[in-house]
Amino acid sequence: MKIKINQNFSKLNKNYLFSEINMRVKKFQAENPDVKIIRLGIGDVTLPIPELVTSAIKKAADEMGDIKTFRGYPPEYGYEFTKDSVRLYYERKNIKVNNDDIFISDGAKSDLGNIVDIFDNNEIYITNPVYPVYIDSNTMSGRNIHFLNGSRENDFKPMPTGLDMEPKIIYLCSPNNPTGSLYSYDELKNWVNYAKDSGSLIIYDNAYEAFISGNYPHSIFEIEGGRECAIEVSSLSKMAGFTGLRCGYTIIPRELSAAGVLINDLWRRRQATKFNGVSYPIQRAAEAALSIEGEKECQKAIQYYKKNAKLLADFFKSKDIYYTGGESSPYLWIKCPKKYNSWEFFDYILKNAYIVTTPGVGFGTMGEGYLRLTAFNTYENTLEAIERLKKII
Amino acid sequence: MKIKINQNFSKLNKNYLFSEINMRVKKFQAENPDVKIIRLGIGDVTLPIPELVTSAIKKAADEMGDIKTFRGYPPEYGYEFTKDSVRLYYERKNIKVNNDDIFISDGAKSDLGNIVDIFDNNEIYITNPVYPVYIDSNTMSGRNIHFLNGSRENDFKPMPTGLDMEPKIIYLCSPNNPTGSLYSYDELKNWVNYAKDSGSLIIYDNAYEAFISGNYPHSIFEIEGGRECAIEVSSLSKMAGFTGLRCGYTIIPRELSAAGVLINDLWRRRQATKFNGVSYPIQRAAEAALSIEGEKECQKAIQYYKKNAKLLADFFKSKDIYYTGGESSPYLWIKCPKKYNSWEFFDYILKNAYIVTTPGVGFGTMGEGYLRLTAFNTYENTLEAIERLKKII
Repeated sequence: MKIKINQNFSKLNKNYLFSEINMRVKKFQAENPDVKIIRLGIGDVTLPIPELVTSAIKKAADEMGDIKTFRGYPPEYGYEFTKDSVRLYYERKNIKVNNDDIFISDGAKSDLGNIVDIFDNNEIYITNPVYPVYIDSNTMSGRNIHFLNGSRENDFKPMPTGLDMEPKIIYLCSPNNPTGSLYSYDELKNWVNYAKDSGSLIIYDNAYEAFISGNYPHSIFEIEGGRECAIEVSSLSKMAGFTGLRCGYTIIPRELSAAGVLINDLWRRRQATKFNGVSYPIQRAAEAALSIEGEKECQKAIQYYKKNAKLLADFFKSKDIYYTGGESSPYLWIKCPKKYNSWEFFDYILKNAYIVTTPGVGFGTMGEGYLRLTAFNTYENTLEAIERLKKII
Repeated sequence: MKIKINQNFSKLNKNYLFSEINMRVKKFQAENPDVKIIRLGIGDVTLPIPELVTSAIKKAADEMGDIKTFRGYPPEYGYEFTKDSVRLYYERKNIKVNNDDIFISDGAKSDLGNIVDIFDNNEIYITNPVYPVYIDSNTMSGRNIHFLNGSRENDFKPMPTGLDMEPKIIYLCSPNNPTGSLYSYDELKNWVNYAKDSGSLIIYDNAYEAFISGNYPHSIFEIEGGRECAIEVSSLSKMAGFTGLRCGYTIIPRELSAAGVLINDLWRRRQATKFNGVSYPIQRAAEAALSIEGEKECQKAIQYYKKNAKLLADFFKSKDIYYTGGESSPYLWIKCPKKYNSWEFFDYILKNAYIVTTPGVGFGTMGEGYLRLTAFNTYENTLEAIERLKKII
């Protein structure tokens, strides 16, 4: 064919991170067939969905099989009952959002990827290390990407200090994937003030909110002025184990505007054109998970993961190894000993403790010299992993 | 905020079609509270999902509630079992597609909207009248749109005759929404030949395939050379009543390339970045619906709708009124009597027969003077609607 393709795709990083990991693990296992490998690289939930959620799916399936309760096309922005459940989930955390601000979707990744559609060619600011979707979706659209460097000096929480005052689109994720770091109220207030002063937009990825312990913001909208400069994208994937069920939501305050147009209206038009709403049984599942009882059930799984994270954190603390995360996050981001880079330490741990981790450099240049460990394995395996690590670190 | 928004959104048609219809119907009903209105404007399925499909959802929900069978992130391109079921559905119609060609999605609308991401600024050719998504998604990306006019002269099946030989992206939909017309083997062969000769790409919307009667192509890939110039987008929405469950698929043959890049690979990268796969219970539902037994069950609903369509078609035939569709489609596209334009005839039928239709002009300029009627109401209501129409036409 002679049609023109989007040449920006050729600028995308070939991200071989997880295939490279799989290859190395496979090779090691083949050479050492008797070894029991423990995977602390998993970035996906592992515990099952609570019964009240699966019941909601089954009830909805029955409704779809009965002409009296059958439902066709869902509203593109979500059923009001789903939006109600999001609004009330926020309300229980003393955060005010309105149903008209809320867009139900099939997941945060879709929204974070598709949101580029409604903007023109702005300067994009993305933290480093980072979840690759922000970079790839903007690269596909030919946008100019600048990095906000995370490091030990700022505890992997880049701040706006030193940025020029040109309007920009800024991606923040807190609690962070991959570093597990999270912004305090004051730090987030700094970001909101900067965004307001510079006329910038913050795209706030809140997917790990349910893991937060202690006095930290559960939403950018808790910060004064947040509704005037930020979009929040969140998901039930980690909050309720929905990675396989697919439901998320994006909150765009109705007061947010640029060039005289409501950002909420732009997204409304985008979704009405290129999206047809979320599956009815899945919206019922989301409603159940976000209910008071549902949140309680879902928190059991989160507390289980957090217990694992704490075991890992306590171990690295006892070894005096620098790390972030491990408390309000399923992730631990640890500094490799000086003589190792990310891949070297990955190999050292694989070969000597039979544990799979994720090399930090796979998340960006600033991840070099770090490893990501996750809490999504079982308690027993996490304990055994620590016993093994004790012998080699 | 001072960020730059996508100015192409301001060029979008404000499509008030369905809200305008609702307003007129509401007003009429308020003025005539005792009248029983029959809706033949419905563009959504109304019959429930077969039991073997709802059972598959419930079984999958149970699996998600059990740690031994729980599943996290689905593959971005669909589970192999879902792709198998699509491949076998085609195989039963003697059409060969491979699992690697198939991408499972949350619906045809998402794919038809998002596909613009992988192309640069090509000339876009869209039939008129038309399903608005093709126009709006390309308008949002600032593409140049040309119309291929449908009319009584070509039975609302525009052909490539007279087009220049520059490479273009061409949207075809057969059986067509809104006109119900469908291309024959020879006509589609003409299009494939033209696309191959000019280096063009056909985006073939096959959402109404399951309604086809008689010897008509069930896929663009039935046509010799189709795999070298076409993408096919389809959906379980109409085939299996999935409008509320959300599952579709796009088939991009691995032999399709432009500028040395496989189109399949571009879409693969796009979906891996901006999509996270379809809900597991919904993929199990799709698998059930596409099975031999499932297809048989789903065809019962389609035959019900087609019986309604035939009733309507027979009536307009008896009145010697020109129409397309009504046979391989849930839609009838009828010519208004000379003295009426679309909205006038819409009003005439609403006020004198208490029937809601859809003005053809809402689907494009070439729809002026036509109405769309649909077969998605009950048999009884369709019969009654015809009795009423008999008295006024």
